[in-house]
Amino acid sequence: MTDNTTASRDSPTRTQKAVRWHPPSYDIRVEEIPIPEIQHPDDAIVKVSLAGLCGSDLHVYRGHGGANDVHVCGHEFVGHVVALGSSFSEPAVGRPILYSSLKLGDKVVSPFTSNCGECSACRIGYTARCPEGLLFGSPSLNGGQAQYLRVPKAGGTLFNLSDPTTWTSSMNEEQKKAALSHLADSSLLVLADILPTGVFAATQAINHPKVQPIITGKPWPLCFSSTTGNDISILEEDRIFTAAIVGLGPVGVCAAISLLDTVAGRNIPYRIVAIDPNASRREKMKAVVDKVLESDGKQGGEFAVVSIDEAKDKVKEWTNGVGCAAVLEVVGNPSALSFSYDLVRAFGVIVSVGVHGEPPLPFNGSAVYNKNVSMDFGRCPARAMFPLAFDLLVKRQDVFGGVGEPASLVDKIVTLSEAVESYRAFDKGEVGKVIFDPWN
Amino acid sequence: MTDNTTASRDSPTRTQKAVRWHPPSYDIRVEEIPIPEIQHPDDAIVKVSLAGLCGSDLHVYRGHGGANDVHVCGHEFVGHVVALGSSFSEPAVGRPILYSSLKLGDKVVSPFTSNCGECSACRIGYTARCPEGLLFGSPSLNGGQAQYLRVPKAGGTLFNLSDPTTWTSSMNEEQKKAALSHLADSSLLVLADILPTGVFAATQAINHPKVQPIITGKPWPLCFSSTTGNDISILEEDRIFTAAIVGLGPVGVCAAISLLDTVAGRNIPYRIVAIDPNASRREKMKAVVDKVLESDGKQGGEFAVVSIDEAKDKVKEWTNGVGCAAVLEVVGNPSALSFSYDLVRAFGVIVSVGVHGEPPLPFNGSAVYNKNVSMDFGRCPARAMFPLAFDLLVKRQDVFGGVGEPASLVDKIVTLSEAVESYRAFDKGEVGKVIFDPWN
Repeated sequence: MTDNTTASRDSPTRTQKAVRWHPPSYDIRVEEIPIPEIQHPDDAIVKVSLAGLCGSDLHVYRGHGGANDVHVCGHEFVGHVVALGSSFSEPAVGRPILYSSLKLGDKVVSPFTSNCGECSACRIGYTARCPEGLLFGSPSLNGGQAQYLRVPKAGGTLFNLSDPTTWTSSMNEEQKKAALSHLADSSLLVLADILPTGVFAATQAINHPKVQPIITGKPWPLCFSSTTGNDISILEEDRIFTAAIVGLGPVGVCAAISLLDTVAGRNIPYRIVAIDPNASRREKMKAVVDKVLESDGKQGGEFAVVSIDEAKDKVKEWTNGVGCAAVLEVVGNPSALSFSYDLVRAFGVIVSVGVHGEPPLPFNGSAVYNKNVSMDFGRCPARAMFPLAFDLLVKRQDVFGGVGEPASLVDKIVTLSEAVESYRAFDKGEVGKVIFDPWN
Repeated sequence: MTDNTTASRDSPTRTQKAVRWHPPSYDIRVEEIPIPEIQHPDDAIVKVSLAGLCGSDLHVYRGHGGANDVHVCGHEFVGHVVALGSSFSEPAVGRPILYSSLKLGDKVVSPFTSNCGECSACRIGYTARCPEGLLFGSPSLNGGQAQYLRVPKAGGTLFNLSDPTTWTSSMNEEQKKAALSHLADSSLLVLADILPTGVFAATQAINHPKVQPIITGKPWPLCFSSTTGNDISILEEDRIFTAAIVGLGPVGVCAAISLLDTVAGRNIPYRIVAIDPNASRREKMKAVVDKVLESDGKQGGEFAVVSIDEAKDKVKEWTNGVGCAAVLEVVGNPSALSFSYDLVRAFGVIVSVGVHGEPPLPFNGSAVYNKNVSMDFGRCPARAMFPLAFDLLVKRQDVFGGVGEPASLVDKIVTLSEAVESYRAFDKGEVGKVIFDPWN
């Protein structure tokens, strides 16, 4: 369907290098495959500058993702538009703004799923559950660990870094442009998944109804009402936001940064416990928190980074045995959920952004009733999170910049030819966040 | 410990009539037992005017409540104070206001659990999970289906209807007194459990983060931010609050009234589907809704009362196949939860106020992840809900008044000697809400 192509791509070759997964498991190959073409008027072809290797790629790698077909891996990428379908060549009244404004050569970042931007789910910001959405790096949609990839529903999916007038922000256009000029592609890549997912977790926690007495200083349910009275007894000590973060991979670290940014911006006293069994992840978390607090020049609360064994005692000590108001579960298995349950207070919330599979939830009815537990599950609507995530990225670029430093979210940049070894080492926990440069 | 008693009670007898449950199940007896005495300085003895028979009493009745010991049934009562412990005779600086102000003869209503009013949980409004709290009508605390009962931690637990200065309200003191003069005891009894639990369900639903795009008209997550932009595409049609209520017992009806009151007060367009397999419950629901809408003089949305078989089609029709933003589960078993899951939209919330037991939650990790489901579980903090519930009771007293009419929440008032037959008939679904007058 090349009829829909409005421009030929800038690569002289017809094939490209790509990292592909082969069934049933642990079979990653770097292969020469055809460069994708426009298949639908709403498609874009993107030339990839950098592509990430994400923890959830390991689900597929290990054969746990339910995939049976060969496909290009990866759902994190930043790149430039090299071909556009015919939808982009016409005035697109009533359609997402990019159908009218996206141009060849524009620099773009994509969320980890495509989304139309036009249905009811997309319009209200639940882009991760667009009925037309597909997950990059799955059998239904080739991913970004390649030199080129096809982006469906590109006007709804992509975020155009070359045209800051097309996105919402607390910054003005000048500030947006200045910010973009400072951000390396390796920093922008966190927008694809890990940063919005961390912000999603923090946003759900801090805005949950059960947390509002802490935030507003009015007890439940008067926290939702203008009503006040002389029988209200909430104390300053009740207004400390207590939270635990279970799992300190890159998403957990981003959740911590987002939480810290929110409580600092709103002057909310806090006690946050960040938990991981892996010592090197804990070291990373500590380095990042030090950098965030240093840049704030103040600390309005306490932040502890602890092992699994230390976690319950720390929470007990910091909450007088009550438990945390919010637990952010960033792992994605039943034991992480059970552990979160143990840490959460009665009338607290477990915000789970981990990817959960077939095992049943590890709770019976009595457990959740007797502790008045609230739970939020599911995939981050990354495209909808971009405005807030981008603002945070700019504001905290001292944290999100850099590669291979103690506080860097990215540990190293490698070539596609190192993909097999990179998957192996990442799977074994021998390396942190790795990203691919497909042109070296 | 009669040393702690500051007044002798007004009954000339030393024994009283009480409805008691005997193990293992279905064994209700009306017996003469001793009148309770003050056991602790914080106790009050209440002479019961009316006591309710509630759906959750049936858990114990059927032997499913985990109870093994004989006890007085019932957790809904309104009455007058006839004895007070010594805590009430001293200035109680820093303690709940009732320790300084509650007097013999005061008319009181109680939540279905006791609570201290002084711990961290109570101070922030989570009174149902006070570590010192006990459930009335359980082996650990005799209930209200009697002529007298003992109320522990009475200064934290009771709501003093004789002294409106002791409670928060949107009404001033004059309005409170005028309101009280119109309310029959049979109306006030709904404060003990069913009305606050209904308001609790509605409050959790309407204030849930995932519902905020509908309420604010800004997509997720900008609904929490002052940020706006030219790429925001939420439409008027996305701003209809869609909800289902699963289970139309008295609590489900109260949840519907609270939801309707909230959406009317805030001009939120709505489509609400109320669901029950029982035709007489559906008739009651219809009569109540007609009365609410008639008193409002307008209808800002659509309200349907349907059977289980009709529910999915109605939700599909009203939400274009998307599902409801909120589902209020007021039943308390796994099949009601599964049904709620089927009705809720992706990124929707299931608010469960049903009492759940030992069976595991009927969801696996994939189900909750793939639909981005949020869930709130647990017991209503009834004491904390009293201010809002009381305001609603006064505002909607045309609905909450009356006994035995089509729109009445109370079907009949009976004597304690009719308890055995009342339990049997209520268990079989042959009668609706029954309340006991222990002095006839």
